[in-house]
This record gives sequence, C-alpha cells and structure tokens, in this order.
Amino acid sequence: MKITRPTLLLDEDRCRSNIAKMSAKARQHGLTLRPHFKTHQSHEIGRWFRDDGVDRITVSSLTMAEYFANDGWNDITVAFPVNTLEEDTIHRLAEQIQLNLLVESTESVRALDSLLQNPVDVWIKIDVGYHRTGIDAEDTDEIARVVEAIESSSKLRLEGLLTHAGHSYDARGASEILRVHTQSVRRISDIRQHLATTHPDLLVSVGDTPTCSVADDFAGVDEIRPGNYVFYDVSQWHIGSCALDEIAVAMACPVVAIHRDRGEVVLYGGGVHFSKDRAAFDDGTVHYGLVTRGRGWQLPDHPVSVRSLSQEHGIVQADSEFLSQVEVGDIVTVLPVHSCMTANLAGQYTTLQGRVISRL
Amino acid sequence: MKITRPTLLLDEDRCRSNIAKMSAKARQHGLTLRPHFKTHQSHEIGRWFRDDGVDRITVSSLTMAEYFANDGWNDITVAFPVNTLEEDTIHRLAEQIQLNLLVESTESVRALDSLLQNPVDVWIKIDVGYHRTGIDAEDTDEIARVVEAIESSSKLRLEGLLTHAGHSYDARGASEILRVHTQSVRRISDIRQHLATTHPDLLVSVGDTPTCSVADDFAGVDEIRPGNYVFYDVSQWHIGSCALDEIAVAMACPVVAIHRDRGEVVLYGGGVHFSKDRAAFDDGTVHYGLVTRGRGWQLPDHPVSVRSLSQEHGIVQADSEFLSQVEVGDIVTVLPVHSCMTANLAGQYTTLQGRVISRL
Repeated sequence: MKITRPTLLLDEDRCRSNIAKMSAKARQHGLTLRPHFKTHQSHEIGRWFRDDGVDRITVSSLTMAEYFANDGWNDITVAFPVNTLEEDTIHRLAEQIQLNLLVESTESVRALDSLLQNPVDVWIKIDVGYHRTGIDAEDTDEIARVVEAIESSSKLRLEGLLTHAGHSYDARGASEILRVHTQSVRRISDIRQHLATTHPDLLVSVGDTPTCSVADDFAGVDEIRPGNYVFYDVSQWHIGSCALDEIAVAMACPVVAIHRDRGEVVLYGGGVHFSKDRAAFDDGTVHYGLVTRGRGWQLPDHPVSVRSLSQEHGIVQADSEFLSQVEVGDIVTVLPVHSCMTANLAGQYTTLQGRVISRL
Repeated sequence: MKITRPTLLLDEDRCRSNIAKMSAKARQHGLTLRPHFKTHQSHEIGRWFRDDGVDRITVSSLTMAEYFANDGWNDITVAFPVNTLEEDTIHRLAEQIQLNLLVESTESVRALDSLLQNPVDVWIKIDVGYHRTGIDAEDTDEIARVVEAIESSSKLRLEGLLTHAGHSYDARGASEILRVHTQSVRRISDIRQHLATTHPDLLVSVGDTPTCSVADDFAGVDEIRPGNYVFYDVSQWHIGSCALDEIAVAMACPVVAIHRDRGEVVLYGGGVHFSKDRAAFDDGTVHYGLVTRGRGWQLPDHPVSVRSLSQEHGIVQADSEFLSQVEVGDIVTVLPVHSCMTANLAGQYTTLQGRVISRL
C-alpha cells in the first residue's frame, strides 16, 4: 500500500476486538447493547457488529438512520432531539423499521403526534448532569407532564428513560468516570422509581463510551449505547477509558517540511483531516494528536504531539530524537484526539491490508 | 425553499461583490490577483472570479489543483510545501498547466528535481513571522542555498519569494493588521533586495485576507493571494477585516429543543457542520458562531452566540429576547466562525434563491 496523502488507517483486528469486548460485557451484565453508529457511519463496519449478535443500533440523525435502515437494520434509535422538520424521513422510516425517537418537552411530543402516520416508540431524554439536552432529572413535574402528553397520543408509545452522561468525557481516570456513572444511574433510577406505580415497565438506557468501558455495575440499567469504543482515540486514552493498544484508527500523513531550528515538522494533515478537537496532557499542554512510531502505533517514551492545525497543515512539536529519524517524504502516523470527528472528515477507511471501507 | 436540515446558505450577491471589490483593488494597485480557492472549492464560484478577469489561482493541495485544472484553470500555484509523494499528480499537472510549486529547503528542491518530467516554476516560501512554514526571513544563508539549488536544476525555474502572514489573523483591528502587513512586506522586500544583483526579476507574492482587505499600500508587492474574502466570516469581522454585511455564508439550523430554565436553545448543527473553530468577543468569551435575525443576517443589539458544539448539536446561549421569539421547529441562521472549514464540511452551497452549488 502506497500512501501519498492523509489517509485514515483502520486496524481491523483492534476494531473487531473492541466490538467483541463490549458485546461480551453487555451479555455478561444482561444488558441490551444498542451501539451508537455515529462514530463509524459505515455499512461494512456495522456488519461486524451484526456478526457479533447486535441487532439494534443508535444513530444521531435521521440521515444516518436511513443509511443504516438501507443496510437491513430494523430497530434504530435516533439519539437526538427529534427534528420534526424532517417529517418525510420520519414517515419513511416509521413505515419501514422499528423507529425510536427522543422527546424532551410537551411541545415536541405534540408536534410529533400531529405529524406521525405510523406509530413510533419514544424515549424521554433526561439530563443527569451533562446539561446539553434533556429534562433536568430533578424536574419531576415536567417529566410527568411529558409522560402524560405521550399517554394521550395514540401514535406514541413510551419505551423508557434515556440519558447520555457526556460529562464523563471531562473525567480523569477510572474513579472519576465511575463517579459520573454511579450518579447518572442513580438519578435516572430515581425517576423510574417515581413513575413505577403508573408505569412499571419503563426501560432505562444509558450510553457513553467512558462509563460503559470502565463500569462493572449496571444495576438499574437495561440498555447501553456506547459508540466511540469501536475506534477509541487519544481523548479516551487520556481519561482512562481505553488502553493505547485499543485505539483502532490513526491518520497517516506525509512529512512536507522540517524546521530543525525550531524543532518542528510540518505534516500534510490539517483541520480538514483531523477536525480541530483538542486534548490536553496532565500538565495542561494542549495538542491535536499524538505521533506514533513503528508497527502497532506505539508512542515514544516522550510523547511527540501535533501542537497546531490549520486547514491542511499539522505542526508537530518534535524532540531531537524524532527529528533525527524523520525526513521530508516520510509518512508519520498520528493517533487522533477525537475519532468520531476525524472519521467523519475522512469519508473512508483504509485497513492495514490496504482495503478501502466506505461510509455514509 | 424548505430547509429541514443544517444547510449552508450562500448570499450570491454579497459573494460576487466581495470578488469584485478585491479585483478592483488589485487593478487599482497594479497587482496580480491570484485568489486562494481553498475557501470555496467550487467550479461554479471559481467561474465568478473568471468573469471578473481572474486568470490564475492558488490552491492548498494537488487534489484541488487537479479539480480546478479540470475546469480550465491553467495557471495554478499550490501554496503548500510540495508533497513529493504525489508525484503522479505532479506529472499530470505539470504536463497540462502552468504549475507553480513551493519549496523551502534544499531537500525539497532536490527531491522535486529528481522526480520532475516537465518543468515547473517554484516560489521560495519565506517565513515573515507566522512561523508555520517557510525559511526564516532572517536566514539569508539558507535562502541563498535554496536559490542555488534551484539554479542548478534544469527543471525548476525560480519565480519569486512567497509568504503568508497568517499571524494577521491574531491581529485586532485595522492598525494591528496593517502593522503585520508593513512588517511582512518589509521583510520579504529585504530578501529581494539582498538577491537583486544576481536575480533582478524575482517577484514577491503575499496573501492573506486581513492584510489584503485592509491595506492600501502594496509597494514592493507583485501578487496577492487572499482567499477567505470570497465569503469572509465572524473571525474576519471580529478582527476588523470585513463588515458584517460582507459575510456571504450562514448556516441555517433547525431548532430541536429549548431549555428556558437555563436560557439555552439546542440547534441541529454541530461540529460536523461548522467545524470546531472558535472565536472570542472582546471580553474574551469564546463562541462558535453568531445567531442572526431577519433578512440580511443582522445581529441583535446584544449578540446571541453558539456557546458549544458537539458532533451534531449546537447550544445557543440565549437571552430573554431571543427566547421569547424562538420555537421548536424554527430555523435559526448562524454566521460561522471560520467559513473555510464550514464550507469544507458542508459539501455544497444553497443560494438564497434555493439553487444548489456543488464543490470538490
């Protein structure tokens, strides 16, 4: 395989191993696994999950739902506040598959009810502390109002309570991740308890890669929806959610210039390839990716990082060891900070065997 | 035109006006205008420049050079340290068009010389203070060595000295931008002066939207290569490089949730639509885009901004005025922080008349 441009490499073995480990964990804990497919957005990689027994998935847009429905997935949750403007897509999907949507206000329930032609299942999105979307877990009155609005619709069926503890991404280390997990599950369980007399069958769905990777107690949880674990990335490694050798994607970038005087190596590989998500070392130093060496994408003893990105350029802050080994025309492989965003930009994957895997 | 998903809108009148103003300025100052096409990456928008008399362009990758060569552009500068790994593309382009490449070391000159089949023009990339790429303007010995290496090649012809004063993006206000411009031009002019006895015909090419927009003295400059001005954006407006009503692109985003208790509006429009470039108000508050109102994309008296982005979500920090006007299912229009990155993600443009314009 000859690499001449920024190329997103996929280690298929690592990826399949990541898929298998989470599936095994879900089985072990008696959990429904509904993996989030926004990370890979690929029919072929999706089938690797199916080979492993997965039969229901999560996506973050109706566009993605349609893409995967076209590959035979027939139970899909769109984990995003329902966008009622896309009613044509909702109609097509609700007719074709088991479509599960998220609601978080009486307004969205009523808007959905008035446009639906076929029944859908809905989950109430609960905010357990991330404060991005969802009804505040403390606001039991509002939750009750939304439950009531759903009950009064003939087309909506209340499936359960769903949350995304995205603040686990800000955790550092397993114990902080576990604290987020325990608190999130307790908050959503309290709501289920609160509704138990009138709605004894409500399910609880949680899902984020850090807590699903680290936790070993899922009491009170019915379904998990992690997604990033298919590839993991440097952010996940920094917070202790994965091991370095579980990261399954890396960007191969040509070296186009070297500035030995200021210890910098210029890569063809910029914001249009990596996205501009940033990570920080423990000392607070910000970076945009870590340079690997050798097969297996190992890190040198002193990490060498991409310190800045512009549209097409990546600037590596190089130490003397790295500078002594690199030449213009070499290919350098960089572990991305956020694999979801990087994969979204790449448009395709190239396996280590040189096979190209397409995506949405 | 019915908008149901995040949609990058293009105000064609503003865009054509931006194109015309820079062309007029170049003519007025007797400058060659070689606009950077990495911002729009579109055949059709490229033709608007051609209608205005532009016959040579700049791009940031060989892929882009090939895309525009296929639309009849036959004098293209790839303003990026030459990636000699893409030799097949270099061969095709050098045979087909007037291809101009950048070199910044004797290594890249020799690598290029050894692979070329057809002659190309080269520019020596000079670092005038941005410190991303290029030979340090003070390092006249290294510059002399690169000149000598070019002279000793039968396939390379030295066209001139080229720089990109990208640190103008960090300026605040016209006077700071002008200071960057004056200093950059002086530094590169000093080098030309230094080489004048042996190379009296060297050209000087500079190019960045802030200095080309604001400056009115281009003594010592032969060619300008601004690109972002085709659309401008909030970053350019913040630093005083454009007026608000010159910004020619905005992202229309569905409102999918409203959290009145914490003054937040959730948009369908995230990092995969805007990219994650950030800007800051004068008080240091970071944001990812500005919410407009009404036709003409005006700003309210108190700017309302996107305060965070995740993959598909944008969270607007809303004041009571904005909250009182917005409902789930509305479309909100957001001026992007960095139009180059946003346009790169959008994949296409939709004019205000509803016409779709494709791109690379």
